[in-house]
Amino acid sequence: MHRTHTCGELTLADLGKSVTLSGWVQKSRDLGGMTFIDVRDRYGITQLTFNTDDDETLRARARELGREYVIKVTGTVIERSSKNSKIPTGEIEIKVADLEILNAAKLPPFTIEDETDGGDDIRMKFRYLDLRRNPVRQNLILRHKMAQEIRRYLDSEDFLEVETPVLIKSTPEGARDFVVPSRMNPGEFYALPQSPQTFKQLLMVSGFDRYFQIVKCFRDEDLRADRQPEFTQIDCEMAFVEQEDILNMFEGLTKHLFQHVKGIDLGTVPRMTYAEAMRLYGSDKPDTRFGMQFVELNDITKDKGFPVFDAAELVVGINAKGCAHYTRKQLDALTDFVKRPQIGATGLVYARYNEDGTIKSSVDKFYSPEDLQAWSAAFDGEAGDLFLIMAGPKDKVRKQLNELRLEVGQQLGLRDKNKFSPLWVIDFPLLEWDEDTERYHAMHHPFTSPKPEDIALLDSAPGEVRANAYDLVINGVEIGGGSIRIHDRELQSLMFKHLGFTPEEAQKQFGFLMEAFTYGAPPHGGLAFGFDRLVSIFAGLDTIRDVIAFPKNNSGRDVMIDAPATVAPAQLDELSLALNIKAK
Amino acid sequence: MHRTHTCGELTLADLGKSVTLSGWVQKSRDLGGMTFIDVRDRYGITQLTFNTDDDETLRARARELGREYVIKVTGTVIERSSKNSKIPTGEIEIKVADLEILNAAKLPPFTIEDETDGGDDIRMKFRYLDLRRNPVRQNLILRHKMAQEIRRYLDSEDFLEVETPVLIKSTPEGARDFVVPSRMNPGEFYALPQSPQTFKQLLMVSGFDRYFQIVKCFRDEDLRADRQPEFTQIDCEMAFVEQEDILNMFEGLTKHLFQHVKGIDLGTVPRMTYAEAMRLYGSDKPDTRFGMQFVELNDITKDKGFPVFDAAELVVGINAKGCAHYTRKQLDALTDFVKRPQIGATGLVYARYNEDGTIKSSVDKFYSPEDLQAWSAAFDGEAGDLFLIMAGPKDKVRKQLNELRLEVGQQLGLRDKNKFSPLWVIDFPLLEWDEDTERYHAMHHPFTSPKPEDIALLDSAPGEVRANAYDLVINGVEIGGGSIRIHDRELQSLMFKHLGFTPEEAQKQFGFLMEAFTYGAPPHGGLAFGFDRLVSIFAGLDTIRDVIAFPKNNSGRDVMIDAPATVAPAQLDELSLALNIKAK
Repeated sequence: MHRTHTCGELTLADLGKSVTLSGWVQKSRDLGGMTFIDVRDRYGITQLTFNTDDDETLRARARELGREYVIKVTGTVIERSSKNSKIPTGEIEIKVADLEILNAAKLPPFTIEDETDGGDDIRMKFRYLDLRRNPVRQNLILRHKMAQEIRRYLDSEDFLEVETPVLIKSTPEGARDFVVPSRMNPGEFYALPQSPQTFKQLLMVSGFDRYFQIVKCFRDEDLRADRQPEFTQIDCEMAFVEQEDILNMFEGLTKHLFQHVKGIDLGTVPRMTYAEAMRLYGSDKPDTRFGMQFVELNDITKDKGFPVFDAAELVVGINAKGCAHYTRKQLDALTDFVKRPQIGATGLVYARYNEDGTIKSSVDKFYSPEDLQAWSAAFDGEAGDLFLIMAGPKDKVRKQLNELRLEVGQQLGLRDKNKFSPLWVIDFPLLEWDEDTERYHAMHHPFTSPKPEDIALLDSAPGEVRANAYDLVINGVEIGGGSIRIHDRELQSLMFKHLGFTPEEAQKQFGFLMEAFTYGAPPHGGLAFGFDRLVSIFAGLDTIRDVIAFPKNNSGRDVMIDAPATVAPAQLDELSLALNIKAK
Repeated sequence: MHRTHTCGELTLADLGKSVTLSGWVQKSRDLGGMTFIDVRDRYGITQLTFNTDDDETLRARARELGREYVIKVTGTVIERSSKNSKIPTGEIEIKVADLEILNAAKLPPFTIEDETDGGDDIRMKFRYLDLRRNPVRQNLILRHKMAQEIRRYLDSEDFLEVETPVLIKSTPEGARDFVVPSRMNPGEFYALPQSPQTFKQLLMVSGFDRYFQIVKCFRDEDLRADRQPEFTQIDCEMAFVEQEDILNMFEGLTKHLFQHVKGIDLGTVPRMTYAEAMRLYGSDKPDTRFGMQFVELNDITKDKGFPVFDAAELVVGINAKGCAHYTRKQLDALTDFVKRPQIGATGLVYARYNEDGTIKSSVDKFYSPEDLQAWSAAFDGEAGDLFLIMAGPKDKVRKQLNELRLEVGQQLGLRDKNKFSPLWVIDFPLLEWDEDTERYHAMHHPFTSPKPEDIALLDSAPGEVRANAYDLVINGVEIGGGSIRIHDRELQSLMFKHLGFTPEEAQKQFGFLMEAFTYGAPPHGGLAFGFDRLVSIFAGLDTIRDVIAFPKNNSGRDVMIDAPATVAPAQLDELSLALNIKAK
């Protein structure tokens, strides 16, 4: 038998017991005639003692153990003289009588500690060693717990987990599909799903009513810090529901998770329309952990001779509460921040509400003290506040001010990882204009239903049509999104038309779905959570990489196993393929 | 609101309630001034009534509803005059006051009934309609329940579900890998996993200790009735264990599933060595729902002048209890059965133990009544039995007699789908000789450990080396299999050598795993269940196809969505690929 107990469970209650433990040598130190070894497993760390007076040979063997050796020891639980209150086993130690080396270990290329000396690249190459570190392991334990709780909740609500296929068909948004050549069908390819969207809708047509799946999805796109070519969705769909039913159900799931995994009562999740979110935060995923809502100032800034404000479609600002003490250097840094190419603003106007009651702005040339008092009133300002104002085309300046708001919030410590502020953003636009292709695209996806009262606008003002679409945002991160779907064949055809599909294209790609709609499709809708992001939010992390056991790097490579890799010519031949690599 | 209740829950306890139901029109019939409609959802069927006397217009609208229309009705729960005791809602009906058609439906191409008139092809093309049928839906509900119970059990045993990557690296058995070209890495490919084997072993090296995953795996091979290109495994691995620990743990899981899903106490699972299974059943996955074990007869049949038996390496038979009454025609049919090309026997000898105490065989020319009495004693025979005997090279004749045994068991009704007979088959050979390639292959996989006491045989008698490998068999179907793995780099290198890998090949393919073994790998082992097969056994089905929501056909095609399919030339170009289809 390899162990009677784990390395995390023995306490004073076990004194005198003869036990066997197995695990890894965390560290070793000599003190007089004794050697102390910390042995580690998934459950914790236990101290072992070897005493020359008791057994000289055994102690000599213990002294030769290197870090990360795998050992098995048998001994007696005794009370520790020097206790460690930080760990559950800190009051006991094992007086070892027998030691077996299960496997030796080379010195690892970085320390297996909470704070390691290993850089990102080396940790990814030796990910199996990185996974030994407590914070990384805790992330994956958290992920497991969350998946269990999600299933428990959805099962209790009569959802059925149904596995949908991974080898499917390429879609028109296919440029981002991974494809898989079929040996049995030369010249043909499967695609890996970007989501199980059409299958879950077909399950609704089948009467499955309440479906979910925690499922891998795939997207072949250039990767950013928070994207992976394979990612995991909590994919859900319900029939015979309206938007309200869906919001309530998944608000329930979210609250359940916070309650059962983090012990946090999330309260009721507030709702905000897309239009309002853009107006108040310049973002469809506002970080509502802090206020600092946008205040629009066109009315009270115009016609005072400041050409920038007078010419601007939108003059809008935020009140950085208590920041009047910002130095000139700090203010310049904020101006530089908004002028960075990726933000692209031309400037930043500020006004300080000094402690003495005066207001001093960077545009005093144009605005009188009374004007500035009016600004302050609009900002609900008080002594000590700092107003930061930008101007420009509406959509652009809102995006820019959103960045500034987040930066100031960060500087002020308002984006606390231990605080969770959820928000439903609803009434998304159905379509968005794409400058590159000069046509409208579905903002969510082509299966999202327009609000019935807006359908008439499809021809006259497509950009104004609102969808039955919603996102769940937590701390400024989009955690999930979904919509009420179209379940009527005619409406779906109309949508495809407005998205620029010819009837033939629509038929070729989605004929099976549109045909399904003619055999009795119920009203339905759903939502998908980004599971990786949800776990990373729970873990207080900024990226999803550390909640994934074996992530890929920004080039889509798994550097540990060295994938992707070349394949043998004979294998390509069997797949009826040839390489066609073009010089750059 | 679309419904207050489901179509499966209203009973006499609800009399007088005003309710709203939504669902599909199952059937409709007129009787006098009334129309009766059965409305169906996932939960059941409820009868609706429309009465001309109450509302002529409403009834007229009801008469126009076609099969599979999606409707929403509001009405009152009343007692039924003609009750149906077969369904839970059979004592009530809904007197409808309001009817809304949520969606019309074309007549489906086959009937949505337990026994449908649709053939396999049409049902697969319209799988979303096939899924409406109760037996198919029940299979998927069963699958969901089993997945939930598996997770509940493993979670309670401290297993962590860890997602391993789907985009991995092609392996030497790569001929059966699906590959995925990488746009970002021209000329390179990912492979889809045939199993997460190396990743779960790395998780053990990481200290994850108890891992599981219900996970899709992929194999690009010619498909048989019970194979799919994508299939689902319950993949498990444990560290610091021996074979005994693993058998106990997963016997526990299996018993838990039978108990909680089927209400069956499976009892202790018997164990049998591979050698014994081959000797007694001629199969490494014997169907132990019935006895009819092999009896070897060389000693008592030889030197009596029958050249076929005298020349045979093995003379072996089964006792078909109570089958002495088989007619000549039935016996000829059994002989024809074993002579079929896929079985390939040259003949079948039989002996009848007649009710009058005489024994009559097809080889009476060579064997005296006393000889036949000796046979009968070996078979533990009695009046009424039929002995069926075959002869030939040991391995071949065992396989042939296995087929005959299964056939006779089938004919005798001994293979009852409602009876479950599990068996651990242990001590599998490590290697098996492959005639085609003229070398040894790993019988399980290259990571399986030999029994320590047999390692010395690796050079002298590789075929004799037993592995720490085991299969779980239920009713003659291999449900799961696994092994204790190698965790020592040197032994792993030795294995690769014996499997014909050069050191360079081993390093290229599995360098990362062998390197991992040098950083402190614990003893570990595991098991994977075929989840599709396990569900099909629970469902009493012969194939896995009906426990998969959207299966592929024998050519690997999804005929519903028409995948695989061609992709645009531009997309191939982006992937640095060209088609290279050769004429057959």
